Amino acid sequence: MSKPEFDPINLAQRVESGDRRALARSITLVESVNPEHRKQANELLEALNKPKQSVRIGLSGSPGVGKSTFIESFGIKLVNASLRVAVLAVDPSSTRSGGSILGDKTRMDYLSRQKNAFIRPSPSKSHLGGVARRTRETIALCEAAEFDVILIETVGVGQSETMVAEMADLFVLLLAPAGGDELQGVKRGIMEMADLILINKADGDLKNAATRTCSDYASALRLLRKRLQDPEGFPKSLMVSSTEGEGINESWTEMKKLVEWRKQNGFWDSARADQNMFWFNAELRNTLITQLEQDPETAAASSAIHAAIRDGDISPSVAADRVVHRFLNSETK
Amino acid sequence: MSKPEFDPINLAQRVESGDRRALARSITLVESVNPEHRKQANELLEALNKPKQSVRIGLSGSPGVGKSTFIESFGIKLVNASLRVAVLAVDPSSTRSGGSILGDKTRMDYLSRQKNAFIRPSPSKSHLGGVARRTRETIALCEAAEFDVILIETVGVGQSETMVAEMADLFVLLLAPAGGDELQGVKRGIMEMADLILINKADGDLKNAATRTCSDYASALRLLRKRLQDPEGFPKSLMVSSTEGEGINESWTEMKKLVEWRKQNGFWDSARADQNMFWFNAELRNTLITQLEQDPETAAASSAIHAAIRDGDISPSVAADRVVHRFLNSETK
Repeated sequence: MSKPEFDPINLAQRVESGDRRALARSITLVESVNPEHRKQANELLEALNKPKQSVRIGLSGSPGVGKSTFIESFGIKLVNASLRVAVLAVDPSSTRSGGSILGDKTRMDYLSRQKNAFIRPSPSKSHLGGVARRTRETIALCEAAEFDVILIETVGVGQSETMVAEMADLFVLLLAPAGGDELQGVKRGIMEMADLILINKADGDLKNAATRTCSDYASALRLLRKRLQDPEGFPKSLMVSSTEGEGINESWTEMKKLVEWRKQNGFWDSARADQNMFWFNAELRNTLITQLEQDPETAAASSAIHAAIRDGDISPSVAADRVVHRFLNSETK
Repeated sequence: MSKPEFDPINLAQRVESGDRRALARSITLVESVNPEHRKQANELLEALNKPKQSVRIGLSGSPGVGKSTFIESFGIKLVNASLRVAVLAVDPSSTRSGGSILGDKTRMDYLSRQKNAFIRPSPSKSHLGGVARRTRETIALCEAAEFDVILIETVGVGQSETMVAEMADLFVLLLAPAGGDELQGVKRGIMEMADLILINKADGDLKNAATRTCSDYASALRLLRKRLQDPEGFPKSLMVSSTEGEGINESWTEMKKLVEWRKQNGFWDSARADQNMFWFNAELRNTLITQLEQDPETAAASSAIHAAIRDGDISPSVAADRVVHRFLNSETK
């Protein structure tokens, strides 16, 4: 990224006024790992006023379940209802090049041409630690830009679903129709996070399989412990056909029902507050360890101490105590 | 714990000379959370010479699979082969009182009366973070006391199995016979850690079920990816009957085979070195965050900053940066 030619305060104002170019540039800024950009990104984030809250929807689904088609169909539905929608992709395993924007926009061809839609793919060469921070900051920027709905899309690899669920108000799992015995394929932990399970491709030849899968998941969901933050009947499973547009309205209706109920019963604000604290605690640990690792005095001593630890010449806890105390008294930190 | 009436250096020497009372006292010392004891425990650990390596065996099994009976039978087998065996219990959920030693020893009545066996239950009021450190330090003490085999027993709750596997040379899973459809009950992650799966109670009415279960697990293990550290045929499943003593010799033979192979192929030392680094990194993070939390200046500011984070008035990452930098420049740290 080249040097940004405007100051963070000005950029924040332009984002808040709905300037899409400013939004795109701001996201590029928060995505940068350059320390100077990092500083500007922090100033930018601090300059944002407390915005109207968007509905943040985490959407997970394996490759092949029709995620892009669903987002296209769902996004158009929202835009037609005069809502502004931002789509963010989180893909920690992505090896796509810097030119991936084109790829993602092509996947959602019609939606990407809507004035009220904004699509942002995941940055290339991302690793999970950095992705969490960048994605949260991008969400904050989109919220400041007054998008009504922010869709955060992820593929079900590693910890990315848990990460997305920790930054979303609702978590939606998109699945393809399957034989009943394939139910176990969904990790239990993921099912426990889902507010809504959507069985996609409920059309044509797959309609019957989708009906069966949907009812299998409905039964499985009933077996899970009732969560405090759920109104009666949630979490639930629904069938959708993204290509025929079936079930798309119903999905949004159910999501709105959940949002309203949680807002009225105090779960909305408390969930966001808990998420903020979760990320604060995670960042606190990351920042501390990064500071320690970057301290020249600590770094200079580390290869000798690592060798002693590996060889068992010093106990790991004694070594940790020693390294931390040296770091905290270091002149170079 | 009352004040120890001898110095850590002397205690270390007595542990190394095989003094059981000194060993028990040393374990009590590393279990203490009192800061003065903590300091003495560190001095004690540093005073230990590099000992002969024990075989550290992690043993996991749910309540009811017959863990105590197996340990009794397996332990007696080792003692009869002129080996010295230490049994450590790790139970983070334990609510047993300080007098639990009696309870555990009663469970392994005959073994506990052997001169070459040492049984140590988990301390009461333990929580996982502290348990890891204490267990590793207790292992170090038992190794210094020249036990040939250290059995680290855990029940399959939460992260305790992963924790034990990270401090053991071998990880053994003890299971009861079951119908084939119950196979999924074992968490996949646990199966992937196991070097040996033992189907206990392979006797009487349960013999047939045990045979089926054993062959089910054998098939399941073959589906797992081959690990570098395994010789041909491992991980494997075996049947044992702790009450009739069947399969106990074979289990030990298989374990010895694994130990020899790993030692000859360089996996033994590298696994221990990796474990040491794993725990060093974990302790480094714990120690850093504990130092931060205990700093009076940081603590004084924390309730205001937490409120701002919860309310969304400051971004979690910006807040984390600020808290860390204030801590590192704090006069009181």
